[in-house]
Amino acid sequence: MEVRISKNKIKEAVKKVASAADKKGNIPILSNILIEAEDNVLRLTATNLEVGISTLVDCEVIEPGKTTVNAAKAAKLFSSLTGEEFVLETDDSKLVIKSVNSRFSLATLPPEEFPEVEIPETYSVRLLSAEVDRAIKKVSYAVSRDEARYILTGVLLRSFGDKVHAVATDGHRLALYEMKAEAEEFSAIVPKKSLAELKKLLKESEEVELLLKENRLYFRVGDTVMWTSVIEGEYPDYLAVIPENNPLQCITGKEELVGALKEVSVIYDKEEVRAVIINITPGNMKLTARKVDVESASEEAEVNIPVEYTGEEFEIGFNINHLLESVSSFDGDTVKILMDQPISPVLIVSEEEPELKNVIMPMKV
Amino acid sequence: MEVRISKNKIKEAVKKVASAADKKGNIPILSNILIEAEDNVLRLTATNLEVGISTLVDCEVIEPGKTTVNAAKAAKLFSSLTGEEFVLETDDSKLVIKSVNSRFSLATLPPEEFPEVEIPETYSVRLLSAEVDRAIKKVSYAVSRDEARYILTGVLLRSFGDKVHAVATDGHRLALYEMKAEAEEFSAIVPKKSLAELKKLLKESEEVELLLKENRLYFRVGDTVMWTSVIEGEYPDYLAVIPENNPLQCITGKEELVGALKEVSVIYDKEEVRAVIINITPGNMKLTARKVDVESASEEAEVNIPVEYTGEEFEIGFNINHLLESVSSFDGDTVKILMDQPISPVLIVSEEEPELKNVIMPMKV
Repeated sequence: MEVRISKNKIKEAVKKVASAADKKGNIPILSNILIEAEDNVLRLTATNLEVGISTLVDCEVIEPGKTTVNAAKAAKLFSSLTGEEFVLETDDSKLVIKSVNSRFSLATLPPEEFPEVEIPETYSVRLLSAEVDRAIKKVSYAVSRDEARYILTGVLLRSFGDKVHAVATDGHRLALYEMKAEAEEFSAIVPKKSLAELKKLLKESEEVELLLKENRLYFRVGDTVMWTSVIEGEYPDYLAVIPENNPLQCITGKEELVGALKEVSVIYDKEEVRAVIINITPGNMKLTARKVDVESASEEAEVNIPVEYTGEEFEIGFNINHLLESVSSFDGDTVKILMDQPISPVLIVSEEEPELKNVIMPMKV
Repeated sequence: MEVRISKNKIKEAVKKVASAADKKGNIPILSNILIEAEDNVLRLTATNLEVGISTLVDCEVIEPGKTTVNAAKAAKLFSSLTGEEFVLETDDSKLVIKSVNSRFSLATLPPEEFPEVEIPETYSVRLLSAEVDRAIKKVSYAVSRDEARYILTGVLLRSFGDKVHAVATDGHRLALYEMKAEAEEFSAIVPKKSLAELKKLLKESEEVELLLKENRLYFRVGDTVMWTSVIEGEYPDYLAVIPENNPLQCITGKEELVGALKEVSVIYDKEEVRAVIINITPGNMKLTARKVDVESASEEAEVNIPVEYTGEEFEIGFNINHLLESVSSFDGDTVKILMDQPISPVLIVSEEEPELKNVIMPMKV
């Protein structure tokens, strides 16, 4: 193999695929990038078997061929090298990288050891990259961190009719983001980590194409294809959980509520359950946090903010972090909190962002 | 105690002293800030017994008094609170902080438990804050991390005649920065951590005053006084170590050399000893790094940069990190490397920065 390639192109491509390589290094070949040169393109591929990324870069191929080289080392090398252009060539069991004033000789592993990768040609769903980016950002906070509830550690992507839903829940709160798209019906639970990988690639192109095939979900963005294994199992019926008819309505400034929640949370130490009692009366929301250690060390915080509310006095408790993350996830200036009983689920929406719905369970305080 | 104070003043003052409070919390009173209100100033003091910081803030004192409150909690509280002005008052065993729309009640400890602190009135040395800041920045990298060589874990501050020297060495490399000042003769070894604390305070005033008294070094910067315990013992004779008469001279661009060292270091994994072989011939410096694991996995990096050098071919080895940190510590465009034998100490200087001298021991390669 011998190719001539611009520094910026190889640097970007290696960085992109390297993040899918195995970092633990238990199986050496999975820590490597597969480099294949043919027909004046270089294909770079890396996979830890759960996630894979493959991308194409144009270059001058002097002699076709393939090899594999450590992903982390290659990424570090190309990001620190000076020079405009490099020659990459294989020499015995080495990959030699040459520029005007430098020469690097890196260890390789035989490309035959690299797992078989099949990149699909046709895809069934087409979405706007910006929408997918937004959906991932909006729902990720609600994904469960509890490995015992494995299904909830992923984000549900589900298409039906002209809608695609992105849903996450940990059983205490739920986030739903709705995208518009003509799509074949499909449903897949995608590991949160894989979506974080996808997010990095979305700036490559305005559109992203999806294909669910043999328990893998493929995403094509420009010249790059990423795939991830999906989580098997039945996702909960999330639509049944959303309390669309809650009667009590309280509108508040988003920044005011976020600020007040941060202020009252100051009295808690890191390890504690952080509860906030919210008392709503016409025009006012009083947030109270109480920390009781021993009698003498009890501490209390109280903050008031203005709200639009016309009902009877109402009191409800929340886990501060849950409420904070939910309210923070909105972009608009105001949020609308819809409640029923102090122990029934609360719906949080924003008129400025109708595609996002958050549900949060109250906390007995 | 009852005082009225502007938000920004109390926020800045609490943040400043809080960093001297004990973070471990083994002795609760040392995790607290002592707050003393009298004559329309608030004095805030915190100390972990090794380092202490005390500062004055003007405010309206409605009722003099004193108390202590947890430093970390107070810093977090004042940095997240909205509002322009606060009232702080003691109420039984609580410190109550009130603004227009909020009320916080924090636990306190009796001020009598706080260690006795005596702030000196007169100081013996006066230095420019910017110079001290620069000296700390320039020599800190060479401080030893080896607790077994306790004396070398501090920076020597030594004044004689019209000079003050800041010196650090770990036995393998040494950095000396020379400041100008009329000062009484003194010599103190200051823990590196204390200098990091001092650095944060230096922007308060153009000048910093020093006083060595009973094994403590006091720094006064504006309205703030910081003190640190000093390290007892005899610092090595650093002037004898500097090879002022090395005959071989090689001048190179600073950024070129830093870049080349970073490039060749790419082939090393984190845990390895990272050596570089430098081969100098007229006009050229060749840097080579070799990683030899097993026969098949050996890797090599070679980078060439232009230099001013007219002597015979000369080869010398270094620990890459040591050379990189030393060269990086200069601000100018060029550095001058002065050598003698491949095994004798090397002096690195820069014509643009005569107040800094670095010495580094070569490495057998």
